[in-house]
Amino acid sequence: MEKIVHFDKEKIEGLDKRFRANFINSVTGYKSANLIGTMGVDGVSNLAVFSSVTHLGSNPALLGFITRPTTVERHTYSNIKANKQFTVNHIHTDIIKQSHQTAARYDKSVSEFEATGLTEDYIGDFKAPFLAEAHIRIACEYVNEYPIAENGTVLMVGAIKDIYLPESAFTDDGWINLSSVNGVTVNGLDSYAKTELLDRLSYAKPDKEVRSVLGES
Amino acid sequence: MEKIVHFDKEKIEGLDKRFRANFINSVTGYKSANLIGTMGVDGVSNLAVFSSVTHLGSNPALLGFITRPTTVERHTYSNIKANKQFTVNHIHTDIIKQSHQTAARYDKSVSEFEATGLTEDYIGDFKAPFLAEAHIRIACEYVNEYPIAENGTVLMVGAIKDIYLPESAFTDDGWINLSSVNGVTVNGLDSYAKTELLDRLSYAKPDKEVRSVLGES
Repeated sequence: MEKIVHFDKEKIEGLDKRFRANFINSVTGYKSANLIGTMGVDGVSNLAVFSSVTHLGSNPALLGFITRPTTVERHTYSNIKANKQFTVNHIHTDIIKQSHQTAARYDKSVSEFEATGLTEDYIGDFKAPFLAEAHIRIACEYVNEYPIAENGTVLMVGAIKDIYLPESAFTDDGWINLSSVNGVTVNGLDSYAKTELLDRLSYAKPDKEVRSVLGES
Repeated sequence: MEKIVHFDKEKIEGLDKRFRANFINSVTGYKSANLIGTMGVDGVSNLAVFSSVTHLGSNPALLGFITRPTTVERHTYSNIKANKQFTVNHIHTDIIKQSHQTAARYDKSVSEFEATGLTEDYIGDFKAPFLAEAHIRIACEYVNEYPIAENGTVLMVGAIKDIYLPESAFTDDGWINLSSVNGVTVNGLDSYAKTELLDRLSYAKPDKEVRSVLGES
């Protein structure tokens, strides 16, 4: 039988800093894998990997992500504050190394697109750059921010303005099969996993067992 | 070449309600798959599937999740407000149907553990129930809540108090290999994917290409 280990609050607080960062970043489960594209007032584009992009609501269509205004992600934050626009671009199996490389602390005069070999793409009059290599791409407008008093992070809230994706990636009832476009998921600070759909399940009701609805739409 | 479809704001707002819910819930990428356990003041335990549990910070160790106080998730919210404790339990490949079933609108007098055949487990004097079937289990204390003005949801913030997991699931530097414990990830409102580790990458630096560090710790 497998040995279960217990970490209490005291043990967690006493952990080596790097161990704790790896551990706590993994322990909440899998995360989304996205690159956020922004444009600086100086005309330098920015691309940064984020694992905290989360669905906030469908009507209106809102998403959120967590940032630290004072660390490496500061360019994303200041660019969004300056021009109110950003893009969210899904990471897939073919671009995990370049995507992870965007986390390096490049100088503000350097575009991560150029530095990592990824391709910036502009659509219509939207100022923020999209990632040409991504299959699923979202244009967002800044709506609000919520400072998290407990640790100095900020929940950024964006309104979904445009979505671009392959016609083959979604079903007749709107569900997007993320593994059909080789979408990956983030495990901790530095690891990427590929995915394989297990099942799509029926709407849960108290008097009925859920069943597979795969292939029904 | 694949056909790319464009949904603009107007088209998104005009979508059928169910299509839009499926679509927008999928479009931000993969989500964490957890069951949150709470105890009611009436002594009835509660277990509810959540796909919004997110890492907020490592020092102090904090996590967050999004809830809607006025919908099906209301029992989780009111139980946490009443006794300030909750557990986060990872969903794995063997329990996706029972986990999804917890989303049914059971009456407040019904425990989802009993209704779905999952097993409640109590550790020490912690009041909230853990899920016996989960490999990775976290005890949390309520810290704060941030109402999201844009849509009436709430970001709940919890402090990580205890973590229980198999010794074989984490490396010497604290990284938890979630696919080693058959962890799943959520795609949209109703779909579950299994995962396979692609790579673990080195810390990104401007002057260096990231490389695989798998097996180095």
